[in-house]
Amino acid sequence: MRTSIATVSLSGSLTEKLAAAARAGFDGVEIFENDLLASTLTPEDVRARCADLGLRIDLYQPLRDIEAVPEVEFARNLRRARHKFELMRRLGADTVLVCSSVSPHAVDDDALAAGQLSRLADAAREYGVRVAYEALAWGRHVSTYDHAWRIVETAGHPALGTCLDSFHMLSRGSEPEDLEGIAAIPGEKIFFLQLADAPLLAMDVLQWSRHYRCFPGQGGFDVAGLVRRVLATGYDGPLSLEVFNDVFRQAEAGPTAVDARRSLLLLQEAVGTAPLPGPVVPTGVAFAELVTPDAEPLAALLGALGFTRTARHRGKPVALWEQGEARILVNTGPAVRREGTQLAAIGLESPDPDGAARRAEALLAPVLPRRRAPQDAPLDAVAAPDGTELFFCATGRPELPDWRADFEDTGLPSERTDIRGIDHLALTQPWHHFDEAALFHRGVLGLDAQESVDVADPYGLMRSRAVTGADGSVRIALTVGAAPTDDTVHAQHIALATDDVVAAARRFRDAGGRPLPVPANYYDDLAARFEFADGELETYRDLGILYDRDAQGVFRHCYTRTVGRVFFELVQRDGGYRGYGAANAPVRLAAQHAVRALTGG
Amino acid sequence: MRTSIATVSLSGSLTEKLAAAARAGFDGVEIFENDLLASTLTPEDVRARCADLGLRIDLYQPLRDIEAVPEVEFARNLRRARHKFELMRRLGADTVLVCSSVSPHAVDDDALAAGQLSRLADAAREYGVRVAYEALAWGRHVSTYDHAWRIVETAGHPALGTCLDSFHMLSRGSEPEDLEGIAAIPGEKIFFLQLADAPLLAMDVLQWSRHYRCFPGQGGFDVAGLVRRVLATGYDGPLSLEVFNDVFRQAEAGPTAVDARRSLLLLQEAVGTAPLPGPVVPTGVAFAELVTPDAEPLAALLGALGFTRTARHRGKPVALWEQGEARILVNTGPAVRREGTQLAAIGLESPDPDGAARRAEALLAPVLPRRRAPQDAPLDAVAAPDGTELFFCATGRPELPDWRADFEDTGLPSERTDIRGIDHLALTQPWHHFDEAALFHRGVLGLDAQESVDVADPYGLMRSRAVTGADGSVRIALTVGAAPTDDTVHAQHIALATDDVVAAARRFRDAGGRPLPVPANYYDDLAARFEFADGELETYRDLGILYDRDAQGVFRHCYTRTVGRVFFELVQRDGGYRGYGAANAPVRLAAQHAVRALTGG
Repeated sequence: MRTSIATVSLSGSLTEKLAAAARAGFDGVEIFENDLLASTLTPEDVRARCADLGLRIDLYQPLRDIEAVPEVEFARNLRRARHKFELMRRLGADTVLVCSSVSPHAVDDDALAAGQLSRLADAAREYGVRVAYEALAWGRHVSTYDHAWRIVETAGHPALGTCLDSFHMLSRGSEPEDLEGIAAIPGEKIFFLQLADAPLLAMDVLQWSRHYRCFPGQGGFDVAGLVRRVLATGYDGPLSLEVFNDVFRQAEAGPTAVDARRSLLLLQEAVGTAPLPGPVVPTGVAFAELVTPDAEPLAALLGALGFTRTARHRGKPVALWEQGEARILVNTGPAVRREGTQLAAIGLESPDPDGAARRAEALLAPVLPRRRAPQDAPLDAVAAPDGTELFFCATGRPELPDWRADFEDTGLPSERTDIRGIDHLALTQPWHHFDEAALFHRGVLGLDAQESVDVADPYGLMRSRAVTGADGSVRIALTVGAAPTDDTVHAQHIALATDDVVAAARRFRDAGGRPLPVPANYYDDLAARFEFADGELETYRDLGILYDRDAQGVFRHCYTRTVGRVFFELVQRDGGYRGYGAANAPVRLAAQHAVRALTGG
Repeated sequence: MRTSIATVSLSGSLTEKLAAAARAGFDGVEIFENDLLASTLTPEDVRARCADLGLRIDLYQPLRDIEAVPEVEFARNLRRARHKFELMRRLGADTVLVCSSVSPHAVDDDALAAGQLSRLADAAREYGVRVAYEALAWGRHVSTYDHAWRIVETAGHPALGTCLDSFHMLSRGSEPEDLEGIAAIPGEKIFFLQLADAPLLAMDVLQWSRHYRCFPGQGGFDVAGLVRRVLATGYDGPLSLEVFNDVFRQAEAGPTAVDARRSLLLLQEAVGTAPLPGPVVPTGVAFAELVTPDAEPLAALLGALGFTRTARHRGKPVALWEQGEARILVNTGPAVRREGTQLAAIGLESPDPDGAARRAEALLAPVLPRRRAPQDAPLDAVAAPDGTELFFCATGRPELPDWRADFEDTGLPSERTDIRGIDHLALTQPWHHFDEAALFHRGVLGLDAQESVDVADPYGLMRSRAVTGADGSVRIALTVGAAPTDDTVHAQHIALATDDVVAAARRFRDAGGRPLPVPANYYDDLAARFEFADGELETYRDLGILYDRDAQGVFRHCYTRTVGRVFFELVQRDGGYRGYGAANAPVRLAAQHAVRALTGG
């Protein structure tokens, strides 16, 4: 099916919007009137630009407050519409969107509405234009799709059809039976289909619509279910995204357009119109790669945590540190970014690395060169939206290329076994692309996204959303700061799994490690909230261990100081605890701010 | 009356919050539990710090999910509460807030709730603590203030009273008759009064409460009306602000605390408990002062607009440009800020400059030195929250000091009279203090605040809110960008009033002025929307004049290019048009972005 996007969904000038839509692979655009008005391009320029970019102008929108008004007002409206039809002729656009009236002058008279829309369609036909009539959820008299369709049906005009919009239909809390009326509409009378998702917010529908829409799969609507019903009518127009969103308005148009198109690809997969290479769910974390201009602080930290530098890369300044199944690469090569120590790549164990990369590529993730140097093992890798490199690995499987083969052993003995593996990774996301990140990890990697949670930092509310494999073998926490300016303030982290956090924390400290200090008041509160065995709380207090409990089990965890933008966490899960200690995050964040204030870091 | 503020209303560490509250002049604080937990200060440290700062700890909060539960659970809750009472003893806090339960285990049994709260109060009394029971608007069984009071009354315990909270009471859309029950509560049983305002949003009350509260006078609630009712009961505890707000969480604590205290001062004035010097509403704009490192581009622009450099300051490098009643000062002295050309000060004609300054000072506006140099006329001036200096002037009134006396005439003749005066000034506000700005101009200057409007910029939604004198002689548009990073992106502007914008625009262009180019598409749209006399639209198109119409009249306006952070607008209002051409703002913003993209400026 053809895909389209409304220019209002993207930021910038009309030129920037068109370029971004074309680059992301859309077939067409809806031209939002205000974008044209504010542009220095003439309609003829826009037509030529779209042709050059391979974009069809699928819709011009919107015409407002046209129908069901006294004749004298309708005459004025028709005059206004003729101006727009003439403009559309210059643009080369053949379908116009007419929204149901919100005018206080409109009357509740379907016959009048049908008659006037019919006359509008007569005029449109003179210019080769079709009219698609849509019910706004807050329309004055017409606010449901089936009501709009009844009016279109009554008019019975060949140049008049309906436009369906998932936001207007699903924001009214439509039950499945409310959507059954779609089947009664002949496909050829559905002139257009606009798609948007939205988070399930209880708020005024106009504000919700204007500020909080998002791309399908990023919100809580069953957009795929609606599209299936529409396709069943025989509709063969484009799937077109129309999203009003305050964040997208500020974001760069390029990444937003890619995000948008990926959401449509996943939607098409869900409704069975565009087969993609199937998801290959990762089964574990092969490694986490840190880049740093100075390996010493990291080496000291990893040493105190009980890691051993077991191998080095044959061709690059990359050291492998191991303990149990936890593997950390420390890369001191010429840093791609100059921001100091940070988490730059993740190796994910994959049952089918090639298939995983093919799906990611089909879903518009940039594919990275398979070999970084001629002698390296050929590795499948893509870039996540936040720039983190994701390697699809087959550690220790002789039939497939193994990243481990690029490393030669140091022969250093591994001395400790406090740590079993990597429990989870926390990645700071660019502020404008938080919803995109969750959809990427869900759609591309096949992980499940948990609910988003707010976390109080001393300087603003952070959000955090976990994506996980079904068995918990891969857990990634996506986090984002309170404001665009916070993009680089908050640290990424690597959480290491242990079966005995008390022993691990003690040995870390005895080895010279510096835990994040936890305020005494926190432990007084724990004493109020839970009952502990004799001495248990004192041990936690002594070692800076935090405690949480859910319906399933218990979570105990502690933190190292931060190096560059990265810190480590030691994590012990018991009894099936499934969270990440979010209740303790405000205390951790405040402690990190306090350390930073003291050290000036 | 004493004033207090909850630590959750301010950003930062507990230390920062306490310092900010004290500096703004609050008498006390509510300690929000999470702020204490995350602090490295012990309870004894906090007590000592508050004593040093002259702050009383008026409340410790909150205790949650205490009452109306099975006995075994209540025993656990009582154990938890005793821990907190002991903590309060260490803090020196004597009142604890208990919120009505949201626990799924709570039962709908007022007698059980009263009995358990009574036992809680027994325990509290052992520690010298009083319990203030409050109905959360989303409490499971108790969600209204009068229900909470009935339970307190039933318990009949001397250490148990109620806490009233304006958000929880007014967010339920309380009609005046819903508040009549306040009169039935004896004042001494109201242990605490928490105040917050909120914008009138139709949304889930929990989300509204947690993210959108604001200080009294910044939202849509009648907080003063509620306070009057509470004071009528004999309540003599503090007026305490408890505001959860995503923006304040990110803002610096210092300015937020000043903003908070100013809102309480205005509230106290409204309810008659704290007389302030009365408002002195400005009656006109005496001048606008621009600072610039390079006077040449401004001189060229002002010259083309028809201004004459009529005078120069006797002691400083400041030129006065005049035309009609429009006066622009161009200051090339050592700039206080290094950001290039900008609007730094406004002179407001005042019937009583001294009185205006005294009110501003009482409302915590920084007062500026009356004389900038020994020979200058003594002028009353204060700083607005955005840093703009506001001078209260008495131009041409011989009985008062006149700023004009500091200037000597150049003797240059004034040649043109296109411009009558200053129509309005647009000031870009710091992102975190937009609500504060409107309250300042309303409360301090006695201007009326209009509704806030959203304006689509190509890179995000801006907001704009006008404050005006009743007769329109002073109009200031407060604007703010889409995100904190936009603070300095958008320009300030000076709108000049003319009775013939066509003539003024033409003479501007003929004098070498460069108008902001307006896209041709805009005029095609005007042609569709309105009918014009022959040649009228062509004139607008030729001169870059924009057009708007409201129920009262017609607005025609055009813009100059931007110099530094400032541009000028020529404005003709006819027939009582009251707006600012907001419908045209997206076109203007896009045109400014286009010019900037071309010139790299």
